[in-house]
Amino acid sequence: MKPTRFVFSVFLFLFAVQPFSFSADLFDAKTIAHAAKLRQAALEKNHAYDLVESLTVEVGPRPAGSEADRRAVAWAEAKLKKLGFDAVYTEEVPVTHWERGEEEAMITLPFPQKLHVTALGHSIGTPELGLEAEVVEVASLEALTQMPADKIRGKIVFINHPMEKSRDGSTYGKTVPGRVRGAVEAARLGAVGIIIRSVGTDSHRFAHTGMMRYQDDVARIPAAAISNPDADMLHLQFGYGVPVRLHMRLTCRLLGQQMSANVIGEIKGRDKPEEVVVIGAHLDSWDLGTGALDDGAGVGIVVAAAKVIKDGGKRPSRTIRVILFANEESGLEGAQAYVLRHRQELDRIIVGAESDFGADRVWRFSTRVQPDALPIMDEIAKVLAPLGIERGDNEAFGGPDMTPFRLSGVPVVSLIQDGTDYFDFHHTADDTLDKVDPEKLSQNVAAYVVFAYMAAEAPTHFGRIEMTPSSP
Amino acid sequence: MKPTRFVFSVFLFLFAVQPFSFSADLFDAKTIAHAAKLRQAALEKNHAYDLVESLTVEVGPRPAGSEADRRAVAWAEAKLKKLGFDAVYTEEVPVTHWERGEEEAMITLPFPQKLHVTALGHSIGTPELGLEAEVVEVASLEALTQMPADKIRGKIVFINHPMEKSRDGSTYGKTVPGRVRGAVEAARLGAVGIIIRSVGTDSHRFAHTGMMRYQDDVARIPAAAISNPDADMLHLQFGYGVPVRLHMRLTCRLLGQQMSANVIGEIKGRDKPEEVVVIGAHLDSWDLGTGALDDGAGVGIVVAAAKVIKDGGKRPSRTIRVILFANEESGLEGAQAYVLRHRQELDRIIVGAESDFGADRVWRFSTRVQPDALPIMDEIAKVLAPLGIERGDNEAFGGPDMTPFRLSGVPVVSLIQDGTDYFDFHHTADDTLDKVDPEKLSQNVAAYVVFAYMAAEAPTHFGRIEMTPSSP
Repeated sequence: MKPTRFVFSVFLFLFAVQPFSFSADLFDAKTIAHAAKLRQAALEKNHAYDLVESLTVEVGPRPAGSEADRRAVAWAEAKLKKLGFDAVYTEEVPVTHWERGEEEAMITLPFPQKLHVTALGHSIGTPELGLEAEVVEVASLEALTQMPADKIRGKIVFINHPMEKSRDGSTYGKTVPGRVRGAVEAARLGAVGIIIRSVGTDSHRFAHTGMMRYQDDVARIPAAAISNPDADMLHLQFGYGVPVRLHMRLTCRLLGQQMSANVIGEIKGRDKPEEVVVIGAHLDSWDLGTGALDDGAGVGIVVAAAKVIKDGGKRPSRTIRVILFANEESGLEGAQAYVLRHRQELDRIIVGAESDFGADRVWRFSTRVQPDALPIMDEIAKVLAPLGIERGDNEAFGGPDMTPFRLSGVPVVSLIQDGTDYFDFHHTADDTLDKVDPEKLSQNVAAYVVFAYMAAEAPTHFGRIEMTPSSP
Repeated sequence: MKPTRFVFSVFLFLFAVQPFSFSADLFDAKTIAHAAKLRQAALEKNHAYDLVESLTVEVGPRPAGSEADRRAVAWAEAKLKKLGFDAVYTEEVPVTHWERGEEEAMITLPFPQKLHVTALGHSIGTPELGLEAEVVEVASLEALTQMPADKIRGKIVFINHPMEKSRDGSTYGKTVPGRVRGAVEAARLGAVGIIIRSVGTDSHRFAHTGMMRYQDDVARIPAAAISNPDADMLHLQFGYGVPVRLHMRLTCRLLGQQMSANVIGEIKGRDKPEEVVVIGAHLDSWDLGTGALDDGAGVGIVVAAAKVIKDGGKRPSRTIRVILFANEESGLEGAQAYVLRHRQELDRIIVGAESDFGADRVWRFSTRVQPDALPIMDEIAKVLAPLGIERGDNEAFGGPDMTPFRLSGVPVVSLIQDGTDYFDFHHTADDTLDKVDPEKLSQNVAAYVVFAYMAAEAPTHFGRIEMTPSSP
């Protein structure tokens, strides 16, 4: 039933001159009217906020592989069952369990001061009594790679790269390489440890954690982040013409694999239950906050969206599958396991989207579908427009857990949230429920309701997409 | 030379009909012109910011009696000497040394979660392995006092009293009694510990410390504060119809007395060097932040103000004395020692003011002087007006360290800062240099310059004031 490219070109042409006659050919008026009705229902409910509250109060921080992670899986399964999903099941996923332990750092010279520090995810610990060395400050990862080894050898590298705010989060991509690859580049030059300025846009005394990686042929050194005010202070201590020294002690460690699970709930399709629209979020969180924004909000949004569709009384043509992924934070392990396990059935997933960028309003709808299918997405965009959502391009990211799906050819969309303030809280102890605005959250639910319902009713598929490893 | 009340009444009448002719009778035109010139000079310099930076980077947290407190005294003495004050000296003050130690708290039932907690100043510690008990929530100190003892006995009291924002800080007075007297009222009813919602207006994961007091005839119980997001979460755990239990462990303790010092610098008066205008701030800080707002800013403001007056080239008639007080935070010990030591000479202090309310703009100038002297203060207010400062009433507080002076009859003024955001950071780890805006700080310096210079040139004294123990 998939229209050819030629037919679509004609569609597009006609569409430009008489859009309303075409609307009917893509979605019938009843579907559009029902989507609008569901959109309104979503705005009037606070299901999503209730879910985020429940998850953050009853479970709280739930790092992959921890005992709280298992409690989160139980919470999600019970919650989906209670909400009346047609099918609720879990799929076990072995996840990497890393434990933070104790962490402390202080400047010892020239002026002793304690720093607010946190280990980066998967970092090794320091020796038991800690590590003390002279500090070398560099402005960025790139500046580090250009340093001569004799300036770095035996020292602790300090990457002091401030992150600017951006609505689309694009500034994250500029600073996060220092967090992910800093330890490798520093160790390559002989450093004994690395401290980074937090990859975050706030000016509060919270260190931002997040994943780092080692490389097999390079020595492993401890890696940690300090808060932005601490980075400012450390920087100023370099202004006295004497060496700056730092002591750090981290007891973090990898504890091997533990069993976690993807938790899945479905609203079964009316006509084509084997064809699936995936809406996802990740259930795990970092250990510092209660994971309200990252990604309690996403969990609340997609679960509430399915609930609103179900409660709307009209079962959609295709199945809507909510997937709450295990261990997004340190390796996308849940998403990868899902794609591996279901690799023979991925073509039944007609489109997917993940909510994982906080709780602020959706302002743009971008897609990554076969160009033939763009008019359908444009029709969906029209029903999203009253929510203040503009139509974006056809290069959607889809969300981190959609990456293995996207690389396997599954079309994705992004309901892009305003990320201006997201990195004030991201991966910190300050990621708590009070940062979630119920009204903004409901706008997100309404957006997912419109997308998921209409995609499940779409007259055609969205094709397969080319493999695209790169993304924002 | 002090005008009688009668004369002043006439003055005021004439003032109302022809103010400009009177201006000259109070301050000569040259004095007013020079004050305006100094005001401008203050706005153009960043002395104050440089001082706050230096203090927070080179010393950082400096709780009374600590080794850092002694470094702060040395820092201040060296700084005042370097800035060219005419006289710089210290006066030793024994201060109470309380040490925070380790602190942790977690909800154990119904849903285990760690809390961001900090001990209140002068609290005793818990038993070595901590303290676990059921928690009883009350809405305020007043609500606590109305509870029957059988509801409180053996439990940990949780005062969940949110603080609202206010420009003048008056909302602090409504919530701070729970911090100061909560432990006594809870223990009177048999409680074994107390946890309060932070007396602070932010929604970040910082617990706000601050002084608490015990009472000799009431048992001493450990007292701590949790951050506002943690208080919200603890509150929500009460919604499940089962008892809420909490474990807390504090190793804080009083360590007896240590020697600290008030640090004093003077710009000697031209004609009447024995008559003094005091501008003060406190040198100590709580241990959690670097004491940038509380009270590094005050230190910067008053020291910079004296420096601007000195650099202005016209030595004022009276002496301007900068006093950097020891241990304001836990008992006004420096101010009390000063007043005790100099009790025979307090009548030579014609007026005093302390800057201790952060670093935001001064918006109001209030006074507490003998009514006869109000026209002089009104003239000073006119020179402050271009800084956006309105004339306030004659019931000034003067600042916490002015309390013993005020109680001894010394007239005071308040250059009242905008405190809307002050309690977002007050007594937290987040009180750091980045919260200080150099431009706003310079406006403060300009205000102190105008006040101190004109008071030191005033044609008369400001009288003595009645003892007023109560104050905002």
